[in-house]
Amino acid sequence: MNAEPRRRRSGGRANAREPAPIPQLAASHVRNPYPPMRVLSDDQVEAIHDASMHILENLGIEMMSAAALDVFARSGAKVDRAAKTVYIDRGLVAEALGTTQPSYTLRPRNPARAVPLGGDAICFTLVAGPPNVHDMERGRRAGNHRDYCDLIRLAQHFNCITMLGNQVCAPIELAANTRHLDTYLANLTLTDKSFHVSAIGQGRALDGIEMMAIARGLTLDQMRGDPALSTIISVNSPRRFDDQMAEGLMTVAEHGQSVAVTPFTLMGAMSPVTLAGALAQQNAEALAGIVLTQLVRPGTPVMYGAFTSNVDMRSGAPAFGTPENAKANIASGQLARRYNLPYRTTPGSASNAADAQGAYETMMALWGAVLGHGNLLYHAAGWQEGGLTASFEKVVLDVEMIQHMMELLRPIEVNEAELALDALARVPTGGHFFGDAHTLERYSTAFYQPIISNWQNYESWQESGGADATARATQVWKKALAEYQQPPMDESVREALGAYVAKRKEEIGAGEP
Amino acid sequence: MNAEPRRRRSGGRANAREPAPIPQLAASHVRNPYPPMRVLSDDQVEAIHDASMHILENLGIEMMSAAALDVFARSGAKVDRAAKTVYIDRGLVAEALGTTQPSYTLRPRNPARAVPLGGDAICFTLVAGPPNVHDMERGRRAGNHRDYCDLIRLAQHFNCITMLGNQVCAPIELAANTRHLDTYLANLTLTDKSFHVSAIGQGRALDGIEMMAIARGLTLDQMRGDPALSTIISVNSPRRFDDQMAEGLMTVAEHGQSVAVTPFTLMGAMSPVTLAGALAQQNAEALAGIVLTQLVRPGTPVMYGAFTSNVDMRSGAPAFGTPENAKANIASGQLARRYNLPYRTTPGSASNAADAQGAYETMMALWGAVLGHGNLLYHAAGWQEGGLTASFEKVVLDVEMIQHMMELLRPIEVNEAELALDALARVPTGGHFFGDAHTLERYSTAFYQPIISNWQNYESWQESGGADATARATQVWKKALAEYQQPPMDESVREALGAYVAKRKEEIGAGEP
Repeated sequence: MNAEPRRRRSGGRANAREPAPIPQLAASHVRNPYPPMRVLSDDQVEAIHDASMHILENLGIEMMSAAALDVFARSGAKVDRAAKTVYIDRGLVAEALGTTQPSYTLRPRNPARAVPLGGDAICFTLVAGPPNVHDMERGRRAGNHRDYCDLIRLAQHFNCITMLGNQVCAPIELAANTRHLDTYLANLTLTDKSFHVSAIGQGRALDGIEMMAIARGLTLDQMRGDPALSTIISVNSPRRFDDQMAEGLMTVAEHGQSVAVTPFTLMGAMSPVTLAGALAQQNAEALAGIVLTQLVRPGTPVMYGAFTSNVDMRSGAPAFGTPENAKANIASGQLARRYNLPYRTTPGSASNAADAQGAYETMMALWGAVLGHGNLLYHAAGWQEGGLTASFEKVVLDVEMIQHMMELLRPIEVNEAELALDALARVPTGGHFFGDAHTLERYSTAFYQPIISNWQNYESWQESGGADATARATQVWKKALAEYQQPPMDESVREALGAYVAKRKEEIGAGEP
Repeated sequence: MNAEPRRRRSGGRANAREPAPIPQLAASHVRNPYPPMRVLSDDQVEAIHDASMHILENLGIEMMSAAALDVFARSGAKVDRAAKTVYIDRGLVAEALGTTQPSYTLRPRNPARAVPLGGDAICFTLVAGPPNVHDMERGRRAGNHRDYCDLIRLAQHFNCITMLGNQVCAPIELAANTRHLDTYLANLTLTDKSFHVSAIGQGRALDGIEMMAIARGLTLDQMRGDPALSTIISVNSPRRFDDQMAEGLMTVAEHGQSVAVTPFTLMGAMSPVTLAGALAQQNAEALAGIVLTQLVRPGTPVMYGAFTSNVDMRSGAPAFGTPENAKANIASGQLARRYNLPYRTTPGSASNAADAQGAYETMMALWGAVLGHGNLLYHAAGWQEGGLTASFEKVVLDVEMIQHMMELLRPIEVNEAELALDALARVPTGGHFFGDAHTLERYSTAFYQPIISNWQNYESWQESGGADATARATQVWKKALAEYQQPPMDESVREALGAYVAKRKEEIGAGEP
């Protein structure tokens, strides 16, 4: 320890010329050992449930897809074809919930990267869907394939990122109707982690499933009973599922992959200005989608998705990481557990920069998501500008915050060795423990070693450049890209994937998306 | 709302020329409605308690003050005069705990600023004790009286800061042995809030108590039964109380003011490298001081103080806002509640800047402190560089984070009006709630309005200068100082305080500190 700070500072490696790799926590399943936090009483949960049943039974849900309406009609639900609206009674909800799974596992091409969903497990995904990219050196720019690949390389490099979300940025220089093939190919060759399969239409969904099946060497039938992918079904709140989303949902469900149904209920905009009202609406919309998954294929692995936050009532702009958002993240966990479903939630921020606001907003939402026992923390790394930009620095800061939470979730051990009464007897009053045997045996692994936090004294920090956390994050993502190693893939699999993409591009070019 | 963004943006004031004041939450007692978080099982709490009893009974506590040793000797405790060590058995601990109070209230000169301590109450203090001051415009400098006064003006201005800590910075240009009089005078005239009374020796403690008594128009006897002030007794961990601290503690206890006994147990340095060991030591040291308060004067209002964090094992530098620190903040609350005592804890950060690290570290420790049901969150605003600098920008960022927590603690209401089923029936599928009556009735108060968070879109933010959160904090503290209003004080009280300070400066100058 302080007896040999120089060696430790270089990471304790024998060869002083070789720079130490970025310290990071080992790849391991994160489990939350603490009971879930509750911000609603049982009675309040029931009142929200009842209100959502009222919405489903009496106000109905618009399903723009005729195929989805057919599925509901066959189940006996009341369908108004002219209004494209289905009324779902609580009996049908209960019946559908009877075939869901409380937990399940996604298995990508590398079985060591399996993603457990449900129970006490917590998984973290890369940000999904931003049109823009930003880093402190190159500034803000439109999404593109090069940045796409670099961002997913970061997701591969950092162990705590369990899964890729939907396109981390849109590679806009590629043809819009086939870029999903390019990004799936990048996901499968540059990483070996699970990813989000797009549900914007049947074609995109099926391509992702087929390509993952090729990468795993499985048939579609085998994949059906052994899911590898998840989609997120976004609801056009209030109370509307568009036709592409509904049909994507049905395709993914038919193929046995995971579905998270996530209403985007911004209080005051797409939902009531009150948290109770927004949660009731969220619950009704999530359950409508969940019912549909089970009607299409009973047993479809499905998550309760929630994304309730508020808008800035002065401008209508969306806000994330607010106190209301944190409370919604906790409360929604209570609802998910009422239905015994895995829970997808989001730690977001509205900040335009990877600054102190970005950090405190993310921490608000992240603590809420973790204490609420979120299982899938979607958009957990890189989310900036309320999701409009994927930030390289924010990826790194988010990895740091996620790792802080992982360490928080490591239970305290209390036993004779940990209570250290011998060491306490050895060290005199007013003395110090630096050199005690109890310390020396444990110091190298006793504490979490951060990747961004700088604990130098002010003078040393100034001498070494005085870079703030955001500037240090720039150095870390560059180092992570330098350290990145592409996971191995059998050449025949690589060729089969390439052939699939080429064939599909031809078909889509010929008008068969 | 978005129907009238311009008026709302200026704060809704009639006179558009008058700038809107900084929005802030009303001055009100903060209560935590949620059950405390637990990271230790009941058995683990008992194991830590037992280990701390072993420390008190067998290893002993060094009391450098002969007067303190006398008090312990009179109580029947085993005292080793040569080693200045007292051995406190569990019977004496239990007896002393029998005269403590589970909660009490500090009443400063303005009764509206009363500080409830204990139970579900949470209070937040300004940072205490840094030698340096920093702001983004003037840089880092040694503590001085002008900055001292500006920082306590900020504490007066922001409602969420309930109390001043010990000297927010040392005014080093003033004589060392009388500057406590200058700072008490500033506390009492520039603010009407409670403050920390120094326990570094009898003289400083008594001066603070006398001056507060003058300000309240009470005698010392009246103050004894109606406390206004608190001190913090820092333990020279491991297991040592220096003579000045012990004698300050006794003076404050004799005068019936509040005492928080706070071991500073940095794991790996002043305490074992393991959390269980550090907590056992912390518990023993805190209880030793708590016993002393009750031996001096049974019923002395006393808090269980905790400040356990870790060092950087590469350099020995202290770290705050770490995962270990957050867990210690939660676990220490479990220990405080075991003894039915109010709980003092700390949300700190080691960052050298008011940057993203400052924010995420503070959030880690703050969530831990709040979920652990801390009653007094000491150093809650302005703490930078691990307490070596009072930062103007950090004061503002911390106020923002504290207000986020205050809103998080506002319970969710679930009733017919809040569930908003009428509004949900009125707004069509895919529509929006902006213009609905349910929204319009509530929009102006529905959500927390932040003081720092910027929710503009990227383009508007860039057009308005693209300032990050830290730069915006500079503007806020300058505005807060401009908005600051000195609380009224009767002229005769002001004169009496001035006379007291003059008299004491003469006495101390003549060698009677």
